[in-house]
Amino acid sequence: MLLGNAKIATIDKTSDGDRFSYCMRNNGAVAIKDDMIVWVGDADAIPAEYKDAAKFPYHDLEGRLITPGLIDCHTHVVHGGNRAVEFEMRLEGAGYEEIARAGGGIVSTVTATREADVDQLLKSALPRVDALLAEGVCVIEVKSGYGLDRETELNMLRAARKIEEVRAVRIKTTFLGAHATPAEFKGEPDRYIDEVCIPTLRAAHAEGLVDAVDGFCEGIAFNTDQIARVFDVARELDIPVKLHAEQLSNIGGTKLAASYGALSIDHVEYANEDDAKAMAASGSVAVLLPGAFYTLHETQLPPIEAFRKHGVPMAVATDCNPGTSPLMSILLTMNMSCTFFRLTPEEALCGATAHAARALGLDDTGQVKEGMRADLAIWDVSHPAELSYRIGFNPLFDRIFGGVSMKS
Amino acid sequence: MLLGNAKIATIDKTSDGDRFSYCMRNNGAVAIKDDMIVWVGDADAIPAEYKDAAKFPYHDLEGRLITPGLIDCHTHVVHGGNRAVEFEMRLEGAGYEEIARAGGGIVSTVTATREADVDQLLKSALPRVDALLAEGVCVIEVKSGYGLDRETELNMLRAARKIEEVRAVRIKTTFLGAHATPAEFKGEPDRYIDEVCIPTLRAAHAEGLVDAVDGFCEGIAFNTDQIARVFDVARELDIPVKLHAEQLSNIGGTKLAASYGALSIDHVEYANEDDAKAMAASGSVAVLLPGAFYTLHETQLPPIEAFRKHGVPMAVATDCNPGTSPLMSILLTMNMSCTFFRLTPEEALCGATAHAARALGLDDTGQVKEGMRADLAIWDVSHPAELSYRIGFNPLFDRIFGGVSMKS
Ligand SMILES: [Zn+2]
Ligand SMILES: [Zn+2]
Repeated sequence: MLLGNAKIATIDKTSDGDRFSYCMRNNGAVAIKDDMIVWVGDADAIPAEYKDAAKFPYHDLEGRLITPGLIDCHTHVVHGGNRAVEFEMRLEGAGYEEIARAGGGIVSTVTATREADVDQLLKSALPRVDALLAEGVCVIEVKSGYGLDRETELNMLRAARKIEEVRAVRIKTTFLGAHATPAEFKGEPDRYIDEVCIPTLRAAHAEGLVDAVDGFCEGIAFNTDQIARVFDVARELDIPVKLHAEQLSNIGGTKLAASYGALSIDHVEYANEDDAKAMAASGSVAVLLPGAFYTLHETQLPPIEAFRKHGVPMAVATDCNPGTSPLMSILLTMNMSCTFFRLTPEEALCGATAHAARALGLDDTGQVKEGMRADLAIWDVSHPAELSYRIGFNPLFDRIFGGVSMKS
Repeated sequence: MLLGNAKIATIDKTSDGDRFSYCMRNNGAVAIKDDMIVWVGDADAIPAEYKDAAKFPYHDLEGRLITPGLIDCHTHVVHGGNRAVEFEMRLEGAGYEEIARAGGGIVSTVTATREADVDQLLKSALPRVDALLAEGVCVIEVKSGYGLDRETELNMLRAARKIEEVRAVRIKTTFLGAHATPAEFKGEPDRYIDEVCIPTLRAAHAEGLVDAVDGFCEGIAFNTDQIARVFDVARELDIPVKLHAEQLSNIGGTKLAASYGALSIDHVEYANEDDAKAMAASGSVAVLLPGAFYTLHETQLPPIEAFRKHGVPMAVATDCNPGTSPLMSILLTMNMSCTFFRLTPEEALCGATAHAARALGLDDTGQVKEGMRADLAIWDVSHPAELSYRIGFNPLFDRIFGGVSMKS
């Protein structure tokens, strides 16, 4: 197909080659063959071959904006249950103990996730997935990490893979066995890592379920030595790594992950300029998660200026999870990134496209560019800043996934 | 129709008679005749007359949750233009002067609003209205206040009234001529009030366009004397008043509005316990607007504990406007009220139903109760706390407006 009479935020490098920007075409066109973008340019310079309406049916976009299909590069959309009652108890004044006695906290999600089978996990994830797709998302990363036993961790990843069978979306799976120590290993995180987490990673890899390996490096989760043991296995299996790090304190997770060439390091509110330098050297993306910042009433801002200064690419993601970020809107994530973290709307859009692709190790999406996959979002707006400016509003006109319009 | 097999958050007074609460029915049914609720009760106690399927077609809600239709009791959804570029300029480091030179600020909205005719104002408001309706909203308050001249103020209210002709929603119109002093009266707010605002209020009232009168009482807007002159005319015309007060500082607007028996006093971050007492005495609703709190990076919290202590009803609303709150989601407003202001999910739901109705002077909606209008929202959730818990997710299953299902 040929999309014409469009504004296009192509998302490409600036002329100094250093930084992604809108790279706007204000009177643009895109030619798509099968699932690929075969040409992008000005509407008055369309090559003759793409004007053959039999081969390239023409769609007049009436001035609408095309962006790359959006990418949510950090989610936990597969999980059992929800934590609404715990949310309510806390606001009604219940303390940590009382909530724990009532079965709240991550334990409640682990319990609900273990009780569900693969089909139930898939079914409960789909409304969350659909909310993202309705906002032009074409790639979703999905983590395990609420099973914390072999079978449930595998089931979470199997459910994640199955999303692709029932929805027009690309899924990238991440093994997050090192998310928390389950109750049955209380006080024995090392034994959990060695006896459950690492063997389960090997099993999941053998089943082809692991695109990346992640962990939660924090005082309340795992230390750098424990994460390193998991990352050593990832390296042996040739799987890229990423890490939840420096969310609540700085205990060195960022430098550790950078030393393993991590695709991304996520949260990073407590990272410092040295961490930013390490990330720049390793080429790791900083994935900002404003939904958790918001829900946890965090006040420590990630070191945005240091990331800019050292050229660390910043992505933004929902962190969609039932406890600290029950957020299912990538557009609201972009708005929160601007409002809380003072990202520019251009940084927010690059953060949900080109930089998010890089955070997933993908080089075939996240830009509107010849040779890329034809994953596009088409918006009823006249300027790309509108995507970050509005709060709780979805101006999507159409989503194109692998060359197929969702309107057709 | 008869809605059965439902959970119902009826939203009614607690047994001590003092406070609205969920008042849940966990196995409930609702009978609707024409546009009225004629019976609400337990599913196993449905009177025989409502079991006549010819007169009352049965809808099995399969355990879904019914709430009153939601009410957004403070919006500026009718306006010209948007301020996305200004949002972007500010985040790119532009100062106030530079933005003003580029035509930004409220002036840009006034200019765009004056350039639009009634049909254009209506057309540009509809996507915002539709976003609210998609979340179960059945009543929207709409203010003037971006015209600041006679004809445009009237046009804004005419456009607001027309929304009812093209959408299944009830509109309450509020005259907000005392929103700002327009450029052509710079430095002469008194002359603007006397020569434009008050005559326009009289004209709008004569045209039947004014359900309430509002003002912006603030250092950067109008002082209490100026607001009092407008309120005196409202009193003469027998129109109820409300006020934007104590948003950025405390200059006595709350006490003034309470002395006029205001329906509501809105924003109120800087109100104090004395103000809360005055509001309790006047029966005024405190309308909390977390979207503006969020966008402006406000840190001063409204005096929630004082409102609770003195029994001031709290409503929540989007304040949907192009400058300080481009928020179009009442569910997100509820979530923000819980997260920022520590409202309980029950307070948030009462704030978008029964208390919001009271803020608009309505006594026929905001509850699921015999004799009320059949304006209902039906949700794919199992507990009402889920409506406030999720962020950027819409679980609406159906909206019933005046007895008509939007699915039918
Ligand atoms: Zn996470
Ligand atoms: Zn307002």
